[in-house]
Amino acid sequence: MIYPLAERLFGIIPPVITPLDEAGRFDRASGERLYRYHVDAGVHGLFLFGSSGEGPLLAQRTREEALETSVRVVAGRVPVLAGVLAAGTELAIAEARRAKELGADGLVVCPPFYFRVTQDELKQHFRAVRRAVDLPLLAYDIPATTKLKIELDTMLELACEGTLVGAKDSSGDAAGFRRLLVRRPQGFRLFTGSELLVDAVLLSGADGAVPGLANVAPELFVELYQHFTAGRAAEAIALQRRIVRLFDVFVAPDGTVRSGYAVGSMKAAMKLRGVIDCVRTCAPFEPVTAEQLGRVRAIMQETGVLR
Amino acid sequence: MIYPLAERLFGIIPPVITPLDEAGRFDRASGERLYRYHVDAGVHGLFLFGSSGEGPLLAQRTREEALETSVRVVAGRVPVLAGVLAAGTELAIAEARRAKELGADGLVVCPPFYFRVTQDELKQHFRAVRRAVDLPLLAYDIPATTKLKIELDTMLELACEGTLVGAKDSSGDAAGFRRLLVRRPQGFRLFTGSELLVDAVLLSGADGAVPGLANVAPELFVELYQHFTAGRAAEAIALQRRIVRLFDVFVAPDGTVRSGYAVGSMKAAMKLRGVIDCVRTCAPFEPVTAEQLGRVRAIMQETGVLR
Amino acid sequence: MIYPLAERLFGIIPPVITPLDEAGRFDRASGERLYRYHVDAGVHGLFLFGSSGEGPLLAQRTREEALETSVRVVAGRVPVLAGVLAAGTELAIAEARRAKELGADGLVVCPPFYFRVTQDELKQHFRAVRRAVDLPLLAYDIPATTKLKIELDTMLELACEGTLVGAKDSSGDAAGFRRLLVRRPQGFRLFTGSELLVDAVLLSGADGAVPGLANVAPELFVELYQHFTAGRAAEAIALQRRIVRLFDVFVAPDGTVRSGYAVGSMKAAMKLRGVIDCVRTCAPFEPVTAEQLGRVRAIMQETGVLR
Amino acid sequence: MIYPLAERLFGIIPPVITPLDEAGRFDRASGERLYRYHVDAGVHGLFLFGSSGEGPLLAQRTREEALETSVRVVAGRVPVLAGVLAAGTELAIAEARRAKELGADGLVVCPPFYFRVTQDELKQHFRAVRRAVDLPLLAYDIPATTKLKIELDTMLELACEGTLVGAKDSSGDAAGFRRLLVRRPQGFRLFTGSELLVDAVLLSGADGAVPGLANVAPELFVELYQHFTAGRAAEAIALQRRIVRLFDVFVAPDGTVRSGYAVGSMKAAMKLRGVIDCVRTCAPFEPVTAEQLGRVRAIMQETGVLR
Repeated sequence: MIYPLAERLFGIIPPVITPLDEAGRFDRASGERLYRYHVDAGVHGLFLFGSSGEGPLLAQRTREEALETSVRVVAGRVPVLAGVLAAGTELAIAEARRAKELGADGLVVCPPFYFRVTQDELKQHFRAVRRAVDLPLLAYDIPATTKLKIELDTMLELACEGTLVGAKDSSGDAAGFRRLLVRRPQGFRLFTGSELLVDAVLLSGADGAVPGLANVAPELFVELYQHFTAGRAAEAIALQRRIVRLFDVFVAPDGTVRSGYAVGSMKAAMKLRGVIDCVRTCAPFEPVTAEQLGRVRAIMQETGVLR
Repeated sequence: MIYPLAERLFGIIPPVITPLDEAGRFDRASGERLYRYHVDAGVHGLFLFGSSGEGPLLAQRTREEALETSVRVVAGRVPVLAGVLAAGTELAIAEARRAKELGADGLVVCPPFYFRVTQDELKQHFRAVRRAVDLPLLAYDIPATTKLKIELDTMLELACEGTLVGAKDSSGDAAGFRRLLVRRPQGFRLFTGSELLVDAVLLSGADGAVPGLANVAPELFVELYQHFTAGRAAEAIALQRRIVRLFDVFVAPDGTVRSGYAVGSMKAAMKLRGVIDCVRTCAPFEPVTAEQLGRVRAIMQETGVLR
Repeated sequence: MIYPLAERLFGIIPPVITPLDEAGRFDRASGERLYRYHVDAGVHGLFLFGSSGEGPLLAQRTREEALETSVRVVAGRVPVLAGVLAAGTELAIAEARRAKELGADGLVVCPPFYFRVTQDELKQHFRAVRRAVDLPLLAYDIPATTKLKIELDTMLELACEGTLVGAKDSSGDAAGFRRLLVRRPQGFRLFTGSELLVDAVLLSGADGAVPGLANVAPELFVELYQHFTAGRAAEAIALQRRIVRLFDVFVAPDGTVRSGYAVGSMKAAMKLRGVIDCVRTCAPFEPVTAEQLGRVRAIMQETGVLR
Repeated sequence: MIYPLAERLFGIIPPVITPLDEAGRFDRASGERLYRYHVDAGVHGLFLFGSSGEGPLLAQRTREEALETSVRVVAGRVPVLAGVLAAGTELAIAEARRAKELGADGLVVCPPFYFRVTQDELKQHFRAVRRAVDLPLLAYDIPATTKLKIELDTMLELACEGTLVGAKDSSGDAAGFRRLLVRRPQGFRLFTGSELLVDAVLLSGADGAVPGLANVAPELFVELYQHFTAGRAAEAIALQRRIVRLFDVFVAPDGTVRSGYAVGSMKAAMKLRGVIDCVRTCAPFEPVTAEQLGRVRAIMQETGVLR
């Protein structure tokens, strides 16, 4: 089994936001700046159309423009992964095909997310996408939104047979991720989606992270990864503590962490940094308020990622 | 507030399956027979693209062909409702617009179902669809798939302001449905999605039912409704008991009720009755096996709906 | 199989509150009045130590005094059932034995509720209690607190083998209850715990109801049952609508229905009626406030159960 | 604020099993050997009556004998903590008082676990136990059994006001634990209950671990902790990988991790090591079979903890 992409898959791969204009269309100029900003910050890949990228809410045209733009701007310096977050297999295959045509280097595929399916049906979903499109697949394990945990045995079977080259774990189940780390076949790439545990998973052998919070401050995660690869565990852990503080940008005033609020904070951060022009998120997410923008600014300043 | 459609909304409205051919495309000939079969059986409306109709799994083209066919075949004899089961608001609006163009009489809209949204975000979703498309809206409350209960106060607010003309309750929360029945504004139409409780909800004041099991034997539900309207409560209840027996077609050999298995049994029943040609369901649902076909036949024979 | 108790099990059996004094001890005088009040209201049984009775929160001594008092006051006019809501089998057996010694006519046993157990372990739980104590057992299906649904096949197996003589369904799964009603063996007694669905379950064949709201107005439920047995379905349904309105006593100002708030409202109602002296609930339930007392009074007055 | 116990709280504190004889009574001789075995293995404390200790299933007498025995055998060499896993506050206080009388050094208190309570009610629960019994309290956060997450703000409030001196986190929410680690007040002790993440939480600043798997091989966890304190991160991580392998003793043949099966494996391990005489668990847990004993032996041998 040869994994040409897998060898280039490691490090910090932000699940990048999708910049929109006031009318809700893809904002190409902001997108160009945004993708360049991340690459210049040293990230090791880009992942479009994940949850942070509002993937399941985007119009087809927005997806196409964003992917085309990112592929062009990135220009092969790092891999560009396209999320395939579709309710069913046929729709997933259509999205996957289009992503390949537009130049994606790999696909991140989540379970079907309207109906509850069995682990067997889940395996068929991944296999069907893999058969239909000749691109490396990573599984996206995110039961909070899909209602379905990709079980350990399912993941191992798909890994060993070559259907998957890796996985992004956003399950919140750090113990299960640890079991997967120990049992995975050689070469299978594992990434955490938890911005709060990047140091820990790297130390325990994971290949990298796909943290939503890298939309707020990619340079912190890149630096953490550099500390790790240089064997500076203490520095990595200290930096992680600062990231834990920064995570508060995702916590709404009522103490909860909601998808709409979190994505709004990502866009607020990039606007505050002058990277994107507009904080618009997809309906039905609540719009970003001036108060939210102020909170994000304050937390970014306190943690030293904004002056 | 005028509810022109609402006055025609009552009785048995099957959430009709979407017949596919072996290649997974819409099977027009089977569809024509199927929609006619239901209308001839006396149903009071058709609801396409619900869960039983595999709505969230269908390709756009399949949806369009099915809706066009049903509108043509039904020819105004009963209302045709189109399900709008979309992960986000923009996608929902696009689906809703297309449904109106193709002649749907009303829309059945479920909450966004990938991200967890708040009740406020949920209200915005319904309002945005209503503003964008001039068709009556019914809410589809089905937290088992959407992860989100439409709360009583949310439903009442949307009903009283005229955003919704009715609702299909597939929440499984019969007590909550009862509270809604007592509190709903005049003219707001309420339907249950539970095939096992049709007699009870009719007696307690609901307007009708949208039972998946009507895909197996619409005539039983039509007869039950006729008993009810004629004041024959005892006969309605007795017939409901027979329907409870028939419900076993949805129960897999391991005792669980799974979406894929249930939809497969609906298609099996219609094939056994000679209405559709092919039992194919959408991937990743497990295919209907000969064993499942045999179980469905046996239960239909035992309950007297197949010779 | 002989079910001597089962023949006397039908109708309205309130899951009666446990009156406490200011110090949190059993209030005997209030208890005597309370049990007499219910019997005078025409109830067909009393169920102590259910969820409304704060069963799992009570000290052993409180349980003993309450049961002794109720058995004495009721004096055989109707059956007295004791709840056995214990985290494990050994503790359940000890409670069951003590209940028998104190004169309970039957036991209502819920699944073990700390650890998640399997359906097989659940069966062993019921069987072990039944073997240890020669009293009729009813199962108490209440997954909202126990985290475990008693599955249909489990219930049927325990019913058919004689371990259980009946069940109280507080699962909220009205459709599952309907399947159980149709499949239960002859003589197996079924009660709903949902105050909002009493008319419907009686019409569909259930033997009665164990409604927490009967703690607020037992006479309404007794009257509803009389309408039902006299064949006055329309009157039963109309009365049920009034009960749905009265249910608002359980709804906190924030729109949620919480156990502590609901039990507080039951005690408030009985104090407002002059039956018990003190509204104290068990810690850690939030205490009943003057504001809650006022809300309960207002709703009782609006629905005509308090002047 | 003085935390006399807290200063002695760190390292590996097994949530020790409760050895029973064939009749289900406390097996004193096995208990003496077991507690000594752990102390000799170098553990830094003992925690009786947690989930691994079958706390909520034990008879009062068993609890008393076990606690008395452990206090006597341990003789102050390490702290002995008693679990207070009670459904309500009054019952918790009674258990807490008895534990103090019998010599416990501290209490580990979980949320009330039958009724769903609010965070405010939860705070009252901890405060009431703390007021009633003068022993240091640790919170036991285990929503899989209690249905209730102790939220970050709740924990911090109870920590800052001195109600709690620490917490055992068995929530499975490693990201939330990380936030707590960063925000906790000085001196507040934090332990993970996850055997699969001990290295990671120690590196990120936690004080220790309370791993159920320490019932199978305490020496591995003690060694891991020694590696950590000596700054040998790589060795700690390597040993953790071996522990991940050993975790398979908790995985039933069907791939699930069930409480009853896991506790059975702990007892099997201690019997295989000659420490306890009998593998009996509390009803309704399924009994340990010869097949399970064989699986445990095989995995222990493969991972080098049994010859």
